[in-house]
Formats: sequence, C-alpha cells, structure tokens
Amino acid sequence: MGSIERAIEVLKSGGPVLLYDGDEREAEVDMVFPAWVAEPDVIYELRVDAGGLLCFATSSRLTAALGIPWGDELLSSYGELRLLANKRLRYKDRSAFTIWVNHMGVRTGVSDEDRSLTVRKLDEVIKMAHEGDLRGARELFYSEFQAPGHVPILAARSLRERRGHTEMSVTLFKAAGLRPSIVLAEMLSRGRSMSVEEAEKVAEKKGIPLVKGHELLEWCRKNEVCWSD
Amino acid sequence: MGSIERAIEVLKSGGPVLLYDGDEREAEVDMVFPAWVAEPDVIYELRVDAGGLLCFATSSRLTAALGIPWGDELLSSYGELRLLANKRLRYKDRSAFTIWVNHMGVRTGVSDEDRSLTVRKLDEVIKMAHEGDLRGARELFYSEFQAPGHVPILAARSLRERRGHTEMSVTLFKAAGLRPSIVLAEMLSRGRSMSVEEAEKVAEKKGIPLVKGHELLEWCRKNEVCWSD
Repeated sequence: MGSIERAIEVLKSGGPVLLYDGDEREAEVDMVFPAWVAEPDVIYELRVDAGGLLCFATSSRLTAALGIPWGDELLSSYGELRLLANKRLRYKDRSAFTIWVNHMGVRTGVSDEDRSLTVRKLDEVIKMAHEGDLRGARELFYSEFQAPGHVPILAARSLRERRGHTEMSVTLFKAAGLRPSIVLAEMLSRGRSMSVEEAEKVAEKKGIPLVKGHELLEWCRKNEVCWSD
Repeated sequence: MGSIERAIEVLKSGGPVLLYDGDEREAEVDMVFPAWVAEPDVIYELRVDAGGLLCFATSSRLTAALGIPWGDELLSSYGELRLLANKRLRYKDRSAFTIWVNHMGVRTGVSDEDRSLTVRKLDEVIKMAHEGDLRGARELFYSEFQAPGHVPILAARSLRERRGHTEMSVTLFKAAGLRPSIVLAEMLSRGRSMSVEEAEKVAEKKGIPLVKGHELLEWCRKNEVCWSD
C-alpha cells in the first residue's frame, strides 16, 4: 500500500496522520486528526506531542458559505490594519487564518475539554453545511459560537492555488471521502519547528503515516478528486 | 515580605510569576514573564510547563494609541460577524483579545524562536510608545509586523472595569514600575485548567510567587498606583 492509501485508511479510522509540506515551503510537519474524534485526549496529544497552534481546518468553499471572511480581508477592511494584512512572510502564500472562535458551552475556552467542545461543535456545523443544509449550518454557527475565541478556523484554497498543510489535509480528507473537518497542530521541537527527519522517527514510533507534499501531488496527478472543488 | 512585594521583586528580575484570578471568575492560573526576557527558552517554558495559549499583553491605552482595535469591535464592523462578537461567556467580561500578529522576521511564526522574536519586537514597540514616542512606535509596528499571525495581543482595561489576568498582570507591572509588556499563558492540566491548589505546588517547586486576585485588590486599595491609567 502506498503512503497516501495508508494515510487515507488511517484517517478513516480516526487518525492521526503527519503531513510535511516540503523543503521549499514552510518545511513543517503538522499532526492531523478528523475533527469528529477530537475528544479532550486528542487535544491533549496535539498540545503536548505536536506543540504548535491548535487549529480547526476546513474548505474555503464552506467558510465562504458560512459568511466567514479571510483574516486578511477582515483586517484590510479596518483602517490602518490593512498595512498589517497586505504583507506576506517569506514563503509568500496568503495566510489560511480566518477568525478565532469559542463554542458558547466552554468554561473559559482554552482547556483540552473546552477546545475539544469547540472543535467538535465546529464539526457539527461543517457536517450540516457539507451535507447541503447551509441554512441550518449558519444558524448553528451564529447562535452557538462566540468570537474572538481560542480556536482559529483555517480555510483551504484549492491545491492549485496553495500547497500548505491546510490544503494538503483537506485534499487528503476529500480523497478519503471524508468531510473537510480537521483539527491539527504543527510539530515543534525545543526552539524550532520539528525537522522531517525527526518527524519520521515519531511516525515510526507511533506507527502512523507521514505524507510528504510531493507524494500527495504525484498521487493527485493521477486522481481527479484532488482538483475538484 | 508580602506576596505582592515578592512578585514585584521577581518580575523586576525577569519573572516568572503565577497569577490566579479568583474562584468566582475564570478560576485559572496564568504564568507571566516580562516580554523583554522572552528568549526561545522562555517561550518553551510557557508552552510546555503552562500549556495554554501564548499571548502578549499590554495596556489598552497603548493598543489604542497604536490604532489596534478590540477584537470584538473589529468583528462587529464586519456584517454578520457582529453576531459572534456580541456574545459573552459565562464569566461575562468582554474579551481582552485584539488582533494576532507575526513579526516579519519570523520563518513561519509558530516555533519558540519565531514567537520569541514576535514577542520581543512587540516589546520594542511598547517600549517606544510607553516612553512617549508614539509616532516611532506606530511606524515600527505597521512596518515590521504582519497579521493575521500566531501571537494574540491582549489589551488590559483598568482594574476597576475588569479583573482578568490581563488587567492583573498589567497592574502588577505598573506597581513594579515596569512597562506593561508581558508574555503569558494559562496553566493547564490534562483535560482541564490547572486548579489553584496544583498551581501552588508548582509555585513552591519552582520557588516562584503565586499572586491571587483578592490579594492584589487588597494591596491596591492601599496603593493609588493600581487605579491610575
């Protein structure tokens, strides 16, 4: 079984999978789970074993349908803040950040239990939207969520436009026939991002797949599912 | 020496201090350092030993002077998002979040090195603004920072209006004669926020002060410095 096929099987059974974007981009590895398995222990694993910023990721088609703007658009609409939003870091892509939310049922928003609730309730919103009930999804989102909060929502562009972890993970979920509803965090070592070599050791130790960007792109060249919206 | 006097001494020599808001509020403990000591190892300590969301905190007088809006105001200015921004969690205060930034010198924004750079450069901005060079501070901020990024800026109201960790830490820094330029994160246990009893053990083990909200308020009743802007 190829590495992509193995990652698809693992995600179908609840994850996790490690994703490496590539040497020429962020050169970072993210740990990725389906949002619907995000019990507090999963948040704890992401927080402690990965260590980066815990994010919820979905497709930009669904965030747009929910009325959630890109973070840079939101900032650009507000006077001088456009000066902050018009800049790009060295690897040059536009940021995948939209807004930061809490579910209203949280205590303060930050604990594993609280972020677990926020992520799993976001999954309920995405499930409704993904299944075509946009009206229900919007109602759920605007009535049960609060912002600014502790969980950023990342929105994936198409893999043609951007090849970040957000797009790679949404592509993998699409390839697996799963809704794009993802919780992830960057793998950090002390001081710096974890190298792909270190992440390979973690993947081996945990017995989980590590997918590299170029492998996913090669697989996608043969599989139309990657490119459709 | 009282607990407030001891905390002031420790902050003057670089921190950290633990701050507990109170049973009737978030009932959370934050680990707090001056932003100017935020080398990568300090970010690592906050990320691993505290475990919550790593934030930069300053006074709302300075964020306002820099043209940085409250997060809820920014969201409220953007159509339907006002529905998310008008809600309050159970402990009812308005959120202290403003916007999330990266310094342009970071690699991707999230590693200990990168968040250290963002925090220490934010401290340079606050130092200039605090010393009265608002024009220089604004120029530095809008030319060298990018948003949306990985470090949220929290803005403290006065202790009369709000008694959160942001206000308590800014008050302590003011009491110590230090500029309000702070890096902090919530103390988390597996699954939930760390209790004040557990945090007391951590404080004892590390030999650092733990300040409770009611102690700070009592101290402030005798010390005018807390209430001035």
